[in-house]
Amino acid sequence: MTLKLYVDHVSHHCREVIIFCKLNGIDFEEVLVDLSKRQHLNPEYKEVNPIMQIPAIMDGKFKLSESHAIIRYLASVFPIADHWYPTDLYKRAKIESVLDWHRTNFPRGPAGFVSLSLLAPAVGMPLNPQAAAKAEKVLIASLAQIESVWLQKKGRFLLGSGQPSVADLSLACEIMQLEVLDDKVRERILGPFKRVTKWLDDTKHVMAPHFEEVHSILYKVKKKRQKQTSPVGSSSTQSSRKHDLHSKM
Amino acid sequence: MTLKLYVDHVSHHCREVIIFCKLNGIDFEEVLVDLSKRQHLNPEYKEVNPIMQIPAIMDGKFKLSESHAIIRYLASVFPIADHWYPTDLYKRAKIESVLDWHRTNFPRGPAGFVSLSLLAPAVGMPLNPQAAAKAEKVLIASLAQIESVWLQKKGRFLLGSGQPSVADLSLACEIMQLEVLDDKVRERILGPFKRVTKWLDDTKHVMAPHFEEVHSILYKVKKKRQKQTSPVGSSSTQSSRKHDLHSKM
Repeated sequence: MTLKLYVDHVSHHCREVIIFCKLNGIDFEEVLVDLSKRQHLNPEYKEVNPIMQIPAIMDGKFKLSESHAIIRYLASVFPIADHWYPTDLYKRAKIESVLDWHRTNFPRGPAGFVSLSLLAPAVGMPLNPQAAAKAEKVLIASLAQIESVWLQKKGRFLLGSGQPSVADLSLACEIMQLEVLDDKVRERILGPFKRVTKWLDDTKHVMAPHFEEVHSILYKVKKKRQKQTSPVGSSSTQSSRKHDLHSKM
Repeated sequence: MTLKLYVDHVSHHCREVIIFCKLNGIDFEEVLVDLSKRQHLNPEYKEVNPIMQIPAIMDGKFKLSESHAIIRYLASVFPIADHWYPTDLYKRAKIESVLDWHRTNFPRGPAGFVSLSLLAPAVGMPLNPQAAAKAEKVLIASLAQIESVWLQKKGRFLLGSGQPSVADLSLACEIMQLEVLDDKVRERILGPFKRVTKWLDDTKHVMAPHFEEVHSILYKVKKKRQKQTSPVGSSSTQSSRKHDLHSKM
């Protein structure tokens, strides 16, 4: 029985599961759960994941949700290269520490900042500079910790490793959300973090071509947004933008 | 070499690690990192955990942070009863799913709601009903998911199990934060969730006496707060309250 992934590429949680499978040659059938059509709330999908979020998987009759849990499961049942999720107890524990730090410290993370920075004007509302500034501050503090703690002088990847792990994949997918920002804003945020920038480039390189292929949706969103928010864009399109951008962040 | 836990009982992340050790007869030395004295920011503690958060552990020379990562590690190196963190791949994956849901969906959770509901008056500021109401809504939605998805008709514990796992411990420690609220507010929030209330009672019972012992700090905080906010409390105590309550939430 083929592994089924219930996903939408607009979600970074989904992208990390898709890329993980592609990188490790895990065969899967992709089932689109279109967030823009609110298909995650459909009764049929509730049968797959009663929490009604994506991603979820079905491996035979076994159903599972939450991206990190899915990746841990896949790493345990499929033959993958050890560096992704090491069997060594101590190496694995350190990777778990990064994964948990990610979830605890990035509660709104880049995705939250992007939403606060872009969503308001996209629906014709004034920006909320106070909320956006607060989100940026949290985001920058987290990037500073990646720069100074998780990335070290030796090793190109997190925890000083010479090879990437699931922690690199997960954090990189989260930070890639910043790609939909205008170049100047993205540069203002990421620019000061030289190690983070280099690590992101190294991650893209080592996970080529899958990483960029699966992230191509972000560049499409960016282009669409730039077109919509340009002075030429007519107000008649505004009613359709709210749903579109909201679901994509 | 004894396992060292760097903790403060006021943090629910710390309490779950302490209780896990006590429940499983894991010997440890408790090293207080007093949040009210901002000891987590001391240079000596930075040597233990450069992220400067608690809990952290030192097992010989091995250092680790993040409560879920610590518990996974302890469950792997010490002999513990299998139900806490099953070796069965499918059972473990489901528990990982709850743990990850916890971190993703409870970004501010009960701790956030308690902070928003209590912190403002404690420092002599007006309440922010809008923020508190928003936090309550998020909290109630999460409690509804625990009630309808993670707790099932069969089995007293999460995922329909007859015995508790690390997911029960972790979620229960988070929800226990609500104990510091006034009884009426706590009842308004938890009261409608009959399964959650029963599960919390069952969890306290099966983890006795350690669960209640380690949570005794919450009842002390509640008493202290009630004393401070009673009409008899003089305004001269207000300057010391901010730091005290802020660090405890």
